[in-house]
Amino acid sequence: MAARKSREIRLKSRPNGMPTLANFELAEVEVGDPGPGQVLVRNSYMTVDPYMRGRMMDRRSYVPPFQIGEAMTGGAVGQVVAAGAGAPFKVGDHVQSMAGWREWFVSTGMEMMQKIEPIPGVGIQSFLGALGMPGLTAYAGLLKIGEFKPEDSVFVSAASGAVGAVVCQIAKAKGSKRVVGSAGSDEKCAWLKKIGCDEAINYKTCGDLTAAVAKAFPDGIGVYFDNVGGSHLEAALANMRQYGRLAECGMIEQYNAVDPPPGPRNMILVVGLSLTMRGFIVSNHFDMVGDFMRDMGEWIKAGKMTWKETIYDGLERAPEAFLGLFKGENFGKMLVRVGPDKAV
Amino acid sequence: MAARKSREIRLKSRPNGMPTLANFELAEVEVGDPGPGQVLVRNSYMTVDPYMRGRMMDRRSYVPPFQIGEAMTGGAVGQVVAAGAGAPFKVGDHVQSMAGWREWFVSTGMEMMQKIEPIPGVGIQSFLGALGMPGLTAYAGLLKIGEFKPEDSVFVSAASGAVGAVVCQIAKAKGSKRVVGSAGSDEKCAWLKKIGCDEAINYKTCGDLTAAVAKAFPDGIGVYFDNVGGSHLEAALANMRQYGRLAECGMIEQYNAVDPPPGPRNMILVVGLSLTMRGFIVSNHFDMVGDFMRDMGEWIKAGKMTWKETIYDGLERAPEAFLGLFKGENFGKMLVRVGPDKAV
Repeated sequence: MAARKSREIRLKSRPNGMPTLANFELAEVEVGDPGPGQVLVRNSYMTVDPYMRGRMMDRRSYVPPFQIGEAMTGGAVGQVVAAGAGAPFKVGDHVQSMAGWREWFVSTGMEMMQKIEPIPGVGIQSFLGALGMPGLTAYAGLLKIGEFKPEDSVFVSAASGAVGAVVCQIAKAKGSKRVVGSAGSDEKCAWLKKIGCDEAINYKTCGDLTAAVAKAFPDGIGVYFDNVGGSHLEAALANMRQYGRLAECGMIEQYNAVDPPPGPRNMILVVGLSLTMRGFIVSNHFDMVGDFMRDMGEWIKAGKMTWKETIYDGLERAPEAFLGLFKGENFGKMLVRVGPDKAV
Repeated sequence: MAARKSREIRLKSRPNGMPTLANFELAEVEVGDPGPGQVLVRNSYMTVDPYMRGRMMDRRSYVPPFQIGEAMTGGAVGQVVAAGAGAPFKVGDHVQSMAGWREWFVSTGMEMMQKIEPIPGVGIQSFLGALGMPGLTAYAGLLKIGEFKPEDSVFVSAASGAVGAVVCQIAKAKGSKRVVGSAGSDEKCAWLKKIGCDEAINYKTCGDLTAAVAKAFPDGIGVYFDNVGGSHLEAALANMRQYGRLAECGMIEQYNAVDPPPGPRNMILVVGLSLTMRGFIVSNHFDMVGDFMRDMGEWIKAGKMTWKETIYDGLERAPEAFLGLFKGENFGKMLVRVGPDKAV
């Protein structure tokens, strides 16, 4: 085969505060044929996630920072369109990888590539959402980090999102009597009730969030699954039960702050109520993948697990999709279609 | 016996912000003879502790609030001077109880009274400090809540205090290679090094606390034992190792705040470093008392455990002693002598 053009998105400059389109640039590179042991992949979908904001900063974190002038990386699903001799995948295989933010790539062994087995009736892009990292994040965060037990009431922030919606539905599937999610629109809140939440709080219109959470949890919160931090964390702390647990998954409220915002004013409740607040990173919980895929398969079959996706079309729209995460423009998992579902 | 006068300290009004002497009043009551099953106790020492500030507020907490116009309560040690028929203690028994803030009392069964066996060469008042609740707080907080392992470096705030000094010495006795405490004077810091701390930080003179902690922990902190909250918590968070634990024992920095101060600005590190922040109340860990007393006995005998006490003389000085806690006027455990060591 001849070399082909692949477009990719590079980090042009490090954002200060809220990123803008000017922080990104679209570039074109030539992608050659796979050598021995390599495969050529055409991506179908890539994911944009809030955690990527952290990688745009040059700071100590759990993943290394993106480098200026280089293509960014992140989750993607695609299909093998050519394979070199002795390659671990064959033409037609669906694969997920960390080689997002681009259309085509030849594997180098660094892409953390894995073959995926599409589930009939479930789009391949779900492996970037409910059946992928966000889903596993929900599963590990609620069950292991949050030590959820059926008697726990559960509060979930950013509940209609890729992680939050799965958390809500796992808590319900596992028998929680009270699951309440927060989201930023009435449409999202209505959907949360449709998927089983006992109540939903529109944090943009509810007024005092602490009071709204108190009203939703007259007996207090057993587990708070935190995707937001900031005022949500403060409202949750104010309403935790004794021995409650806070699974700290993310704090999107502050990812774009130029000066780090002050933390919750009621941290003292951690002492008085014997709370446990525990942060986690999904990549430390890959040991749960087997259980996760088994349970998700059952819940999907039983009609207990559904999710929303917002899909932007074309690699060139990836920066826009990413920025949309911080404005709540996604309803559910935010994805970018960068190629056809089937490439061969 | 005839009735006798006993002085007691009552809460006169609820403090707003930093308490003053005007929030307390000294009163005198008559104490009669013990009836059947009761004992008459003369207190020798009472304790003042930062947590009592919380009880002066009318709010939800792990112990009920003090009532205005009533004698306050808290830890005390004393001796039984008279016993009614069938009483569970006999004349001469040393007892600890929650009937502090007074000189004499007749037991009603509500005082959580326990007999104590004085240790030769160790003052009876130690049962209010290193051998009592503060010591057990240190023991449970470091070993159970902080899940200390010998490879952990340990940072302790208010390290020369009743709890902190025991934490430092347990960590050293259990093999930690790096234990650093913070305190509010050079004298306290010098003493911390004498009892085995590898370094001590005078938080009043060190300048930027986060930088001082970073310098003291080039490889990061494994366990932070928090007695202070606020800026200490922020400085600790900034220097935690991955999977580090924060044992949240108290937050004296904010007990007197009229408006709750903002929390740490770097809470996001809880996520990125997979930290566990866990609050606790010593009364939930009484199951550890046996192990605690056994270990403390051994460490004292081996010369590995020492502590400081600041003793104010006379019940009338108890409010002053309590207020002194928030100005760092105590060096080690703050106590008030309210009667003779031996009452019979």
